[in-house]
Amino acid sequence: MKQDHLRSLLSQVAQGHMSIDDAVLKLRATPTAELGYATLDMHRELRQGIGEVIYGAGKTPDQIVGIVNAMLASGQSSILITRLSPEAAHHVHKSLPNPDSLPFDYDPLSRIGSVGAIPVPDGRGTIVIATGGTSDMPVAEEAAKTAEFLGNNVTRLYDVGVAGLHRLLSHQHTILSAHVIIAIAGMEGALASVIAGLADCPVIAVPTSVGYGAAFGGLAPLLAMLNSCASGVSVVNIDNGFGAAYQASMINHVK
Amino acid sequence: MKQDHLRSLLSQVAQGHMSIDDAVLKLRATPTAELGYATLDMHRELRQGIGEVIYGAGKTPDQIVGIVNAMLASGQSSILITRLSPEAAHHVHKSLPNPDSLPFDYDPLSRIGSVGAIPVPDGRGTIVIATGGTSDMPVAEEAAKTAEFLGNNVTRLYDVGVAGLHRLLSHQHTILSAHVIIAIAGMEGALASVIAGLADCPVIAVPTSVGYGAAFGGLAPLLAMLNSCASGVSVVNIDNGFGAAYQASMINHVK
Amino acid sequence: MKQDHLRSLLSQVAQGHMSIDDAVLKLRATPTAELGYATLDMHRELRQGIGEVIYGAGKTPDQIVGIVNAMLASGQSSILITRLSPEAAHHVHKSLPNPDSLPFDYDPLSRIGSVGAIPVPDGRGTIVIATGGTSDMPVAEEAAKTAEFLGNNVTRLYDVGVAGLHRLLSHQHTILSAHVIIAIAGMEGALASVIAGLADCPVIAVPTSVGYGAAFGGLAPLLAMLNSCASGVSVVNIDNGFGAAYQASMINHVK
Amino acid sequence: MKQDHLRSLLSQVAQGHMSIDDAVLKLRATPTAELGYATLDMHRELRQGIGEVIYGAGKTPDQIVGIVNAMLASGQSSILITRLSPEAAHHVHKSLPNPDSLPFDYDPLSRIGSVGAIPVPDGRGTIVIATGGTSDMPVAEEAAKTAEFLGNNVTRLYDVGVAGLHRLLSHQHTILSAHVIIAIAGMEGALASVIAGLADCPVIAVPTSVGYGAAFGGLAPLLAMLNSCASGVSVVNIDNGFGAAYQASMINHVK
Amino acid sequence: MKQDHLRSLLSQVAQGHMSIDDAVLKLRATPTAELGYATLDMHRELRQGIGEVIYGAGKTPDQIVGIVNAMLASGQSSILITRLSPEAAHHVHKSLPNPDSLPFDYDPLSRIGSVGAIPVPDGRGTIVIATGGTSDMPVAEEAAKTAEFLGNNVTRLYDVGVAGLHRLLSHQHTILSAHVIIAIAGMEGALASVIAGLADCPVIAVPTSVGYGAAFGGLAPLLAMLNSCASGVSVVNIDNGFGAAYQASMINHVK
Amino acid sequence: MKQDHLRSLLSQVAQGHMSIDDAVLKLRATPTAELGYATLDMHRELRQGIGEVIYGAGKTPDQIVGIVNAMLASGQSSILITRLSPEAAHHVHKSLPNPDSLPFDYDPLSRIGSVGAIPVPDGRGTIVIATGGTSDMPVAEEAAKTAEFLGNNVTRLYDVGVAGLHRLLSHQHTILSAHVIIAIAGMEGALASVIAGLADCPVIAVPTSVGYGAAFGGLAPLLAMLNSCASGVSVVNIDNGFGAAYQASMINHVK
Amino acid sequence: MKQDHLRSLLSQVAQGHMSIDDAVLKLRATPTAELGYATLDMHRELRQGIGEVIYGAGKTPDQIVGIVNAMLASGQSSILITRLSPEAAHHVHKSLPNPDSLPFDYDPLSRIGSVGAIPVPDGRGTIVIATGGTSDMPVAEEAAKTAEFLGNNVTRLYDVGVAGLHRLLSHQHTILSAHVIIAIAGMEGALASVIAGLADCPVIAVPTSVGYGAAFGGLAPLLAMLNSCASGVSVVNIDNGFGAAYQASMINHVK
Amino acid sequence: MKQDHLRSLLSQVAQGHMSIDDAVLKLRATPTAELGYATLDMHRELRQGIGEVIYGAGKTPDQIVGIVNAMLASGQSSILITRLSPEAAHHVHKSLPNPDSLPFDYDPLSRIGSVGAIPVPDGRGTIVIATGGTSDMPVAEEAAKTAEFLGNNVTRLYDVGVAGLHRLLSHQHTILSAHVIIAIAGMEGALASVIAGLADCPVIAVPTSVGYGAAFGGLAPLLAMLNSCASGVSVVNIDNGFGAAYQASMINHVK
Repeated sequence: MKQDHLRSLLSQVAQGHMSIDDAVLKLRATPTAELGYATLDMHRELRQGIGEVIYGAGKTPDQIVGIVNAMLASGQSSILITRLSPEAAHHVHKSLPNPDSLPFDYDPLSRIGSVGAIPVPDGRGTIVIATGGTSDMPVAEEAAKTAEFLGNNVTRLYDVGVAGLHRLLSHQHTILSAHVIIAIAGMEGALASVIAGLADCPVIAVPTSVGYGAAFGGLAPLLAMLNSCASGVSVVNIDNGFGAAYQASMINHVK
Repeated sequence: MKQDHLRSLLSQVAQGHMSIDDAVLKLRATPTAELGYATLDMHRELRQGIGEVIYGAGKTPDQIVGIVNAMLASGQSSILITRLSPEAAHHVHKSLPNPDSLPFDYDPLSRIGSVGAIPVPDGRGTIVIATGGTSDMPVAEEAAKTAEFLGNNVTRLYDVGVAGLHRLLSHQHTILSAHVIIAIAGMEGALASVIAGLADCPVIAVPTSVGYGAAFGGLAPLLAMLNSCASGVSVVNIDNGFGAAYQASMINHVK
Repeated sequence: MKQDHLRSLLSQVAQGHMSIDDAVLKLRATPTAELGYATLDMHRELRQGIGEVIYGAGKTPDQIVGIVNAMLASGQSSILITRLSPEAAHHVHKSLPNPDSLPFDYDPLSRIGSVGAIPVPDGRGTIVIATGGTSDMPVAEEAAKTAEFLGNNVTRLYDVGVAGLHRLLSHQHTILSAHVIIAIAGMEGALASVIAGLADCPVIAVPTSVGYGAAFGGLAPLLAMLNSCASGVSVVNIDNGFGAAYQASMINHVK
Repeated sequence: MKQDHLRSLLSQVAQGHMSIDDAVLKLRATPTAELGYATLDMHRELRQGIGEVIYGAGKTPDQIVGIVNAMLASGQSSILITRLSPEAAHHVHKSLPNPDSLPFDYDPLSRIGSVGAIPVPDGRGTIVIATGGTSDMPVAEEAAKTAEFLGNNVTRLYDVGVAGLHRLLSHQHTILSAHVIIAIAGMEGALASVIAGLADCPVIAVPTSVGYGAAFGGLAPLLAMLNSCASGVSVVNIDNGFGAAYQASMINHVK
Repeated sequence: MKQDHLRSLLSQVAQGHMSIDDAVLKLRATPTAELGYATLDMHRELRQGIGEVIYGAGKTPDQIVGIVNAMLASGQSSILITRLSPEAAHHVHKSLPNPDSLPFDYDPLSRIGSVGAIPVPDGRGTIVIATGGTSDMPVAEEAAKTAEFLGNNVTRLYDVGVAGLHRLLSHQHTILSAHVIIAIAGMEGALASVIAGLADCPVIAVPTSVGYGAAFGGLAPLLAMLNSCASGVSVVNIDNGFGAAYQASMINHVK
Repeated sequence: MKQDHLRSLLSQVAQGHMSIDDAVLKLRATPTAELGYATLDMHRELRQGIGEVIYGAGKTPDQIVGIVNAMLASGQSSILITRLSPEAAHHVHKSLPNPDSLPFDYDPLSRIGSVGAIPVPDGRGTIVIATGGTSDMPVAEEAAKTAEFLGNNVTRLYDVGVAGLHRLLSHQHTILSAHVIIAIAGMEGALASVIAGLADCPVIAVPTSVGYGAAFGGLAPLLAMLNSCASGVSVVNIDNGFGAAYQASMINHVK
Repeated sequence: MKQDHLRSLLSQVAQGHMSIDDAVLKLRATPTAELGYATLDMHRELRQGIGEVIYGAGKTPDQIVGIVNAMLASGQSSILITRLSPEAAHHVHKSLPNPDSLPFDYDPLSRIGSVGAIPVPDGRGTIVIATGGTSDMPVAEEAAKTAEFLGNNVTRLYDVGVAGLHRLLSHQHTILSAHVIIAIAGMEGALASVIAGLADCPVIAVPTSVGYGAAFGGLAPLLAMLNSCASGVSVVNIDNGFGAAYQASMINHVK
Repeated sequence: MKQDHLRSLLSQVAQGHMSIDDAVLKLRATPTAELGYATLDMHRELRQGIGEVIYGAGKTPDQIVGIVNAMLASGQSSILITRLSPEAAHHVHKSLPNPDSLPFDYDPLSRIGSVGAIPVPDGRGTIVIATGGTSDMPVAEEAAKTAEFLGNNVTRLYDVGVAGLHRLLSHQHTILSAHVIIAIAGMEGALASVIAGLADCPVIAVPTSVGYGAAFGGLAPLLAMLNSCASGVSVVNIDNGFGAAYQASMINHVK
């Protein structure tokens, strides 16, 4: 149930078009749906303005399909699924009640799937997503597709790592016109600090597990980003493109 | 040099009230000041809208005084100094050219000092700062005073840790009306996740070094916050109240 | 040899129905059985009230079968096998002297196998098993099946993580009526603290390896749980559903 | 407010001796008290059967005194303060409204302070507290005094580490008659496993920071205890004698 | 070249049976053999009394065969190969110049291969090898077979972990009659401390990677063993059965 | 564009053989090429004297081919590709515009591929590459082939680890005549310290992931090399043979 | 009670010079003495041939004096105290019943104290103690004084670290004539590997906390020593000179 | 003894101006001097061209004075002492045989002391030393003073961290004209990567312990620098300004 629906329902009551009992009935519809293996939060869209997102890792294809169906049944019109394996994506696609009218999109690089239409962007400005290298692209696309699903314009700046500063400096205008920047890098993760020094908007840093040896699966860029000498940087989990985009979208939609 | 000054200067040029040569002269004023031990970034206020902040740790009182004076000489009207020892604060206070007209404020709990007047808040809304316990107050006050210095309204919710949920739930209205929330906690750092589940605005999490044993100086809440199962959370360095407030202010002043 | 058998034997001696020599003979039966690769503890049931449990990981199917047979031969009537691979389960099933009269149960999700009948619950109350997410289910089922094998009533609360508090709060009655709670969570592991703040019984926390990046294979929830700001929480090894259930059963059967 | 008070109040209502309005008034008394630096949970005793405990570390003597006074004012009759420095203890002692009628006890070894009388033990059995060495005594006494404050009989077995097994084996009877055992050890922390192999009751293990070099401040015994090959062991934070005793008391008072 | 050969050569010179030039020629035979990928130390047997051992991991089957052949060509009569894959073992076996007269032995559990005859034991006493569990057997057999190859009597005590102390105590006589003990355990690694407390000879502890979760690949028993509260314990690398046996053999052959 | 080309172009301008406009045109050719997934730095050869190197890990074969072709199109005559899988190597080989005239070389051990001719060595002296063991060869060959590609004479000293010092000491002359030494070792990484004590030129140490147990994927030799008690040692990432050779070549070509 | 005393007592019984009852009485003297804070193991000298050693760290001077007196009262004639602070040493010295006849020795560098006479060496050969640098001396002297107290000849080789190999090589004869070697080093800890490559006797390695930065309090040499590529090395805890000497003495007194 | 002296001595022999016996006598002067607590390497200057340097940490003032005197006695004319406390510096100064003719210099910031004259620079070019911030100055000055002592011209660029890129870019000419660069930074350590991307000479990176929280005493910049995405970077230990300068000087003096 979206906030708009809630307002409309309440104004129907206010104008006498709906009895109080009917309104209570609609509102008392239990906000959680218990599937045995999952407890869905059906009022989240109402509470936070964004529908439930399914974290696909560690769930069987059957469980994912079950959750999708419960959500659709509860009236949610678009669903994002992250870390979705190709097999599970195929499974979800086939299981949709009406795959023709209900678009399903899947990107194997970022392993992002979405059910329903991508909304028209309604944020304040643009989210710039920059990566240090080509190998950071799966994380970057998870961020980009999530941000687009949540109603944002996205500009991609890929492979602009600090070892060749002019690659980054040639995009200074893009950086200065961003409303939020997501800086994604593995190895030494210096990209976040350098971008934050150039920009005047919040920078959300995403360390990636790209690298080897003493990168320790993303620990090196994680620590680097947490210790950024530039102000205006905060950090999300290693490879967490979704989390960065979710917060970036909140900032881009700030009241 | 603030952006307002720049605009005014440029419009003077546009209207013929200032020669191009004079404008160039004013603009070419070198943006860095070299003090031997420090290289000041004098155009930062112009570039990012916020003046240089002095990180007081690891600098001698004399170096801090030298930097403050160079900033004042370059026209900056208010200066924030973090991690300022009481001794250095005393030193700075005495060295101000005119301590009477130029207010100096120092808080020994958060070790924050400020030169010049605190501005009238001009952000979009309120920044809520919540802590898990009483011992997190030094970090929380560093965040609160920084946010106030940067022009924000701040609401403090201290000692509302998750071990007694009703303490937090009784403030649900405050949480829902925030524009940004800074969640500060040591020990297991669960506060960030619980608040992010309740709120619909960005949450910046600050792990603190409060705790003992397997808290490992803040590592436990740091990891917990990075792995938050709630969406909308990003993290700054352990005990980094300043960094959280800086980004929160950016979000609260988003274009 | 169960404690009941011991008591009956001793009372036979007391009443003169058994000679001291016969009793000694029965009691001197060596309490360990050496299989070359394993040294079985045949008196454990007598000493601790619970029969030997086989930890299946790192043992060949042949070794597991050998241990099961030695246990059955020594008179043990029910055997629990944890971390049992499907292949080894098949092997054990086939090798049972009389698979028809001796039930064998295997759950591929939790990899728990059991030989013999599950006892009627005889504990003081209920063990509540709660998980943060769907992906924690294998660990939760290891705990649930172990607890049932050891004679406990179990209530399952799955996918009630702290990102949506009302999911948990709607089960407050269940939590308050528990005798022991096992809180299972990966990622930031905040579930244990929140439940312990609501409950008035011991909480055994199980960190899981669910998560990615800075979860570091369960290190993040492990540290979080060890640093819980709520009182009444203790912790077992990452993914150790069996260990939590074993101790929970001890508490639920406390003298 | 204790559960007994609540029951008596409710029965007064049931018998018509108290009006509903008066009962509501008494019950609606706000369960949290806000002191600015602390948010007290005044209904915890009602909810969990145990009054609020003050964690003294990181609080100023004035803050501790303020919390103690607020608790006394709310009707709590006995208060436990952990990690209380000698200075703060002196401060608390002096500040008590009537130090003569309200006993104050302080133990500098364990840094435990208590206000009010220690209750008569009412648990099911005995809590045995065992340590590996003499140096573990501060943690052990924190556990022992907490357990006594919470109404338990305590038996101390100090310096019975595994390097000389007969020291431990000579106390086998004590171990077998315990209802709960708290095993406290630094260095390699093997005590917990050995005791759990001998006992038939829950063992709560407390790693201590006793040791040097590769003990890494208690990390070595912490990991050892989490990996105990003996069943029935759970673990609390390094040096957390209080936490172990709190849970042990819960087990010893299980319904 | 063995020390015996050296002595006989020198006494031949002393007795005039060999010219100095001939002796020099024999002695100047280059002590290293360069194979491009390996630099063999042909005098090690002379220097240390033990021939070169081949560490098979990270070497191709061809490289191992090349090294074996170079060693045989230099006169070494028996060769131990550790961490030898079944494929490489097959390869070595086939490549031996005369597989019939030159025995080759391979144990797939410990991945130990040996070329040439196992010597008659000539050490001072017995090396006892004890393990905590069945899963430690591959490491234990690497130790046992190495010790036998180096001329020692070996007694195996497998699966005598501390969770059931009587399993270990029933072998107290074996422990007290050992000259060296190798204590092998994963999980919490307490076996080393308990054995060292019972024994009066050196104990070499081998942590194994057996375990899961917070065992962190053997880190938990490694730290525990390094922090043993019992005297007389030293430690080798995780899973390093060979290294423990090599030093144990040195001790058992001490001058 | 190489520095030589730049100088020739500029002297053509100086001598009037090229119009300024033509020169500008040639120089303004954009120094970065955007491929969507990669931003190539086409002027790096001009700036640093060494052409762009492709780090093959984490790139698809198609991406690598795309980058190679863009580089060739921009006039680069030789290209080094590190961490190139055999499949990608095959793909690159087939895609070369004219594989006959443009040599392609691939070494499956070091996973190094190169397009174009290897230059005649033009450094000041010799780079000596020493390894502790045979298993370090893939890293050593990555270093050796990189150094040769960058125009250096290379001397290989493989399997000269410190356990048999005479293996190393017999090469003392080679060590003393080196201009730079790359010391490559896993396990305890002592090779770097011992070589640096013998040599009088810079030593670049490369820890490798060779080893097991407490080697922790190369952490042990990494820490050892960083803490070398010998002066003149610096360290690169674990297994980073390329990085060591790149810097060694810089030193060997120092102005 | 020493083994000699036991044998003499038993032979008195065998020869009829002592009644069985008297012998039982002497033997039944309780082997542990409970001091409240310590449980002394009075039969350890009988069991292991070496009297109880007092680990002074974490014990109050009064506790140490109490233990010393209990030991003297039980007939032990010489006592070693490690990690003894100067204050506690003074306290022990003063408390001795007869300081004149009972020698007390204290070395402030190694913090070793001993009560009673140092025995005449009775080991098989010499223990060589080598250090990498001057700063390792406190640990080395703890080892040397312990070894001497336990009846061993000790040869000291200090400051022979691997950065200047000839310092070590000039002592090759001493190394080759040792029966056991204790190799003590901080920083990269390479000394153990190099010595083990030269020697033909067991090497016990002691990492020290000497160093800074990435030495991480001794972690770097600890890992290096555990991963020694030379055979015959085992390791004790960081800075544990006592533990190394204790095992070295066992080896030097092997049956 | 310097190499020049050696050559002159040998040519005297060649020309018959010195008898072979006299030369042997001079050359056989023992290259190590044993002071009990230290083994000096007197031929290091001959072997490596640089005299012994004294690492002052962990040595008593008396030991340092003893080493200085032994060096002067052996003919060394200038001595560098790192990590020298003010007290020890005072002690050394007073102990010099002739403080007037033998200059002694001490810098309390970097804790570097030197005996004898600083040589005229004779390297190939300039060593540039850059720091991220003012707090890195002690490490930077240790590097700068060491480099000057070893005969190098040094250019200092302090406080040019990446948060304000133009501070660094304004020094691009200095960076491009360097022969070696030492990049010193704490926090996220990004300076090394950015400089290496701009420069065409070797960059030696020094992580510093400047920072707090997740900087973990320099671990964050250490990992970042090891994972630099820019080529040409190698790393020394945390805070090891001396080590960086020593290698930089070797590079700057390359044959």
